[in-house]
Amino acid sequence: MPLKQKLYEIIFEADTPKGKLFDVTLLVIILISILLVVLESVPSINARHHDLLRIMEWVITGIFSIEYLVRILVVKRPLKYVTSFYGIIDLLAVVPTYLSLIFVGSQSLAVIRAIRLLRIFRIFKLNRYTMAGKNLAMAMKASREKIFVFLFFVINVVLIVGTLMYLIEGPENGFTSIPTSIYWAIVTMTTVGYGDISPQTPTGQFLASALMIAGYAIIAVPTGIVTAEMIRTSNQTNTQVCPHCLYDKHENDALFCKKCGGKLN
Amino acid sequence: MPLKQKLYEIIFEADTPKGKLFDVTLLVIILISILLVVLESVPSINARHHDLLRIMEWVITGIFSIEYLVRILVVKRPLKYVTSFYGIIDLLAVVPTYLSLIFVGSQSLAVIRAIRLLRIFRIFKLNRYTMAGKNLAMAMKASREKIFVFLFFVINVVLIVGTLMYLIEGPENGFTSIPTSIYWAIVTMTTVGYGDISPQTPTGQFLASALMIAGYAIIAVPTGIVTAEMIRTSNQTNTQVCPHCLYDKHENDALFCKKCGGKLN
Amino acid sequence: MPLKQKLYEIIFEADTPKGKLFDVTLLVIILISILLVVLESVPSINARHHDLLRIMEWVITGIFSIEYLVRILVVKRPLKYVTSFYGIIDLLAVVPTYLSLIFVGSQSLAVIRAIRLLRIFRIFKLNRYTMAGKNLAMAMKASREKIFVFLFFVINVVLIVGTLMYLIEGPENGFTSIPTSIYWAIVTMTTVGYGDISPQTPTGQFLASALMIAGYAIIAVPTGIVTAEMIRTSNQTNTQVCPHCLYDKHENDALFCKKCGGKLN
Amino acid sequence: MPLKQKLYEIIFEADTPKGKLFDVTLLVIILISILLVVLESVPSINARHHDLLRIMEWVITGIFSIEYLVRILVVKRPLKYVTSFYGIIDLLAVVPTYLSLIFVGSQSLAVIRAIRLLRIFRIFKLNRYTMAGKNLAMAMKASREKIFVFLFFVINVVLIVGTLMYLIEGPENGFTSIPTSIYWAIVTMTTVGYGDISPQTPTGQFLASALMIAGYAIIAVPTGIVTAEMIRTSNQTNTQVCPHCLYDKHENDALFCKKCGGKLN
Repeated sequence: MPLKQKLYEIIFEADTPKGKLFDVTLLVIILISILLVVLESVPSINARHHDLLRIMEWVITGIFSIEYLVRILVVKRPLKYVTSFYGIIDLLAVVPTYLSLIFVGSQSLAVIRAIRLLRIFRIFKLNRYTMAGKNLAMAMKASREKIFVFLFFVINVVLIVGTLMYLIEGPENGFTSIPTSIYWAIVTMTTVGYGDISPQTPTGQFLASALMIAGYAIIAVPTGIVTAEMIRTSNQTNTQVCPHCLYDKHENDALFCKKCGGKLN
Repeated sequence: MPLKQKLYEIIFEADTPKGKLFDVTLLVIILISILLVVLESVPSINARHHDLLRIMEWVITGIFSIEYLVRILVVKRPLKYVTSFYGIIDLLAVVPTYLSLIFVGSQSLAVIRAIRLLRIFRIFKLNRYTMAGKNLAMAMKASREKIFVFLFFVINVVLIVGTLMYLIEGPENGFTSIPTSIYWAIVTMTTVGYGDISPQTPTGQFLASALMIAGYAIIAVPTGIVTAEMIRTSNQTNTQVCPHCLYDKHENDALFCKKCGGKLN
Repeated sequence: MPLKQKLYEIIFEADTPKGKLFDVTLLVIILISILLVVLESVPSINARHHDLLRIMEWVITGIFSIEYLVRILVVKRPLKYVTSFYGIIDLLAVVPTYLSLIFVGSQSLAVIRAIRLLRIFRIFKLNRYTMAGKNLAMAMKASREKIFVFLFFVINVVLIVGTLMYLIEGPENGFTSIPTSIYWAIVTMTTVGYGDISPQTPTGQFLASALMIAGYAIIAVPTGIVTAEMIRTSNQTNTQVCPHCLYDKHENDALFCKKCGGKLN
Repeated sequence: MPLKQKLYEIIFEADTPKGKLFDVTLLVIILISILLVVLESVPSINARHHDLLRIMEWVITGIFSIEYLVRILVVKRPLKYVTSFYGIIDLLAVVPTYLSLIFVGSQSLAVIRAIRLLRIFRIFKLNRYTMAGKNLAMAMKASREKIFVFLFFVINVVLIVGTLMYLIEGPENGFTSIPTSIYWAIVTMTTVGYGDISPQTPTGQFLASALMIAGYAIIAVPTGIVTAEMIRTSNQTNTQVCPHCLYDKHENDALFCKKCGGKLN
């Protein structure tokens, strides 16, 4: 087997022991590199270990750069890899460090490497997790019209309530402009409630109360949408109809109709 | 085709290329006008561009006013349009600017134009979104008794807990009156939690804890109501009509009419 | 018809025009009396209208007292009424005002009158609302073991996390005692988040983050419990089984089996 | 019956009157001991009753220690008990007090005794509560892949948004480091919203708004997962065993075995 194919199997597949070892090593390096970026931003740690952190950061970036180039070299259709989701993420994982030579601080963006951890699902029982992910994505996609209508409604409410609060409370109570008031309305309706801005006048508090109860109650809407969709998709996995009694809600592992005992085919 | 009908098709329908172009142009102008209103409220932007913003605001109001008048002229039954939901919104979209000549600041109310954006659903695949909207509204309507009972319960709880907290904590801890305490109870029960008022005495903190856990748990109630209703309505999207008795509300898995026993085809 | 029975019909029933008028009048007086209690607690309003508010409060208490006595007189089994839920609420609605002669401020407790508003459901289409209420109560009751297990779990988590935070953060960061820390844990886990106490040390913030994500995710548990129960109870209203094909999930208005077209009996 | 077996029945079982009495007594002592630990942490109470609290704490620890030793002596397979869940909890319940001789303050960890309260379910209708608990655990277990995928998604979002906010807002607005920013992102996305850190720049507020709406909407995902799973498991409470092929996982509405087509009775 030529070197190129050997490397391909190690780097792109996780079935062989070497391929598995490669993936696990990669995951550990990714985790370390995220930790490095995070730690570098902590002033007290950066002050003491700045040089060490920078060196390690460059070493890891070097490893990732070489890995990226090797991937391009060994894959059959390099262009397809480069423009694929994983290819773009692999590139974005090294760019911030090089960019930090020009723009100070941009190395923090290297946390995007976290997305590379998606490969983790390749190692352990790939199938079950991607199935779970696909089911979630499917339920989301099937309900996207309802979610769009819901978001349209939410945006309208925060826009109008935000403006009303700006008129009611005014700049003297922290509602300095309509964008700020809209920000407050979002903070309130989503039940986050920082408290950096809060209504002071009775009218404002009354309107805010109505917004809170609305936000508290309408969380039921996206929940209902997604739940109904998930139940629907989880019921759709078996489409068999009993030829004897026409019953059509069979579980995936059913061999005989649970209603009449007839054989399913 | 007379001019009146031509204009009617362009303004009120979105099937012809010209009608589509009109709707898209209108949406863009609406978005710009909302942006104008929002930006005008930001002190730093208003200070620099006040005149420009005012002029643009009046230009757009002029466009909307002319559009409103043309709509009345070309529609077959003007009174029906004027008193319809869209007719009222179209009028409310221009009133605030004129009103601002008398009441300073009332131009902010022009954000109500956001509701005009509802026309967006006319442009892209109208049907799927209005269906989604109708399904949501139907689920809401079908569960309005349960939601009413739920809200009655919530209002009673915040009323009674608010009063108790006023007696327990008192004005010295920020619970200055019963309305303020009720406002706090709503802020707490909906899990918003600004923190502008918070209990200081052990008894108050204990009662507050109970209210929080209650609020945290009973969110399950509206969620359960709406979800159960959505699952039910999603089973009734069947548009089949029984050929024997003309009954038309069949569940998705119906093979025979539940009213006359006739076969559905 | 003797006076006693006439009064009984007016006071206890809502079918006759007079009975309806009585109930509506009562509801209006209850709402006014709650408003009075609430307004009296606002210092600025109380300062100006103290005497008026007190007089009106006593007038309403007088009306309620007479009404309570008349209810006892005209009802067939007075003891049953007095010890019934409504009887106790009717009594508690007048007690706080009399009590305020001894304990200053206890008149605020008169907000308990809000519960009297339950009679509102008697006036408008009684049946649909009590049905809705009963359905909710039934779903709650059926899932009480699961909710109990869930609450046991929640209380254990806030107890243990609260203690850990007291040890980690300590009094210098606002976690002055274990009860206070437990209060903080409840505020955090229920996603209320006042911010009056918040972790300052990295370890504390890490533990707090874990608690937040736990609290955010496990809200799914009561929601799931109640929703599953509501779907189950809403499916249980028709227990008919088709005698021809044994299908057993018919809607309430089904006359024929939707699976085989056979007649249901 | 020898003493050892008598003691075993009293301590480990709850069927005999003596066994019940033992369990109830134990629960009361556990509750008292938790109360002691909690109260000891309140400065004002500790200042006045320090000695009393310490003595009672040691008495209870003595009782628990003796109980633990007796449990080991009377049980048939001591090692199995010691390494069981209950055995470990019983040990952890006494360790903190002894540890407090070396590490001051560690007695607070004795709140772990709360877990011992699990025995409460043994006393009242054991079965229904453990069933409820098992159902909950089963639903959780069945949806663990989806929950894992969901958590992976959440962690990635808070990591990336946290880093972006650190770059946008910077240390001058309270986002002192990436770990702090991630902490803020978790506080925001879970809708806790302390307000100890909050965005000040328009860009930061915009990104925060997007995060809030995302957090508000995607709570629907775990809710949907768990609810769908609970509905599915609540359909599998059927304990029938097929008399023909001994298959035992039938749905509630099954009339025939789905594995062999044999009739269930």
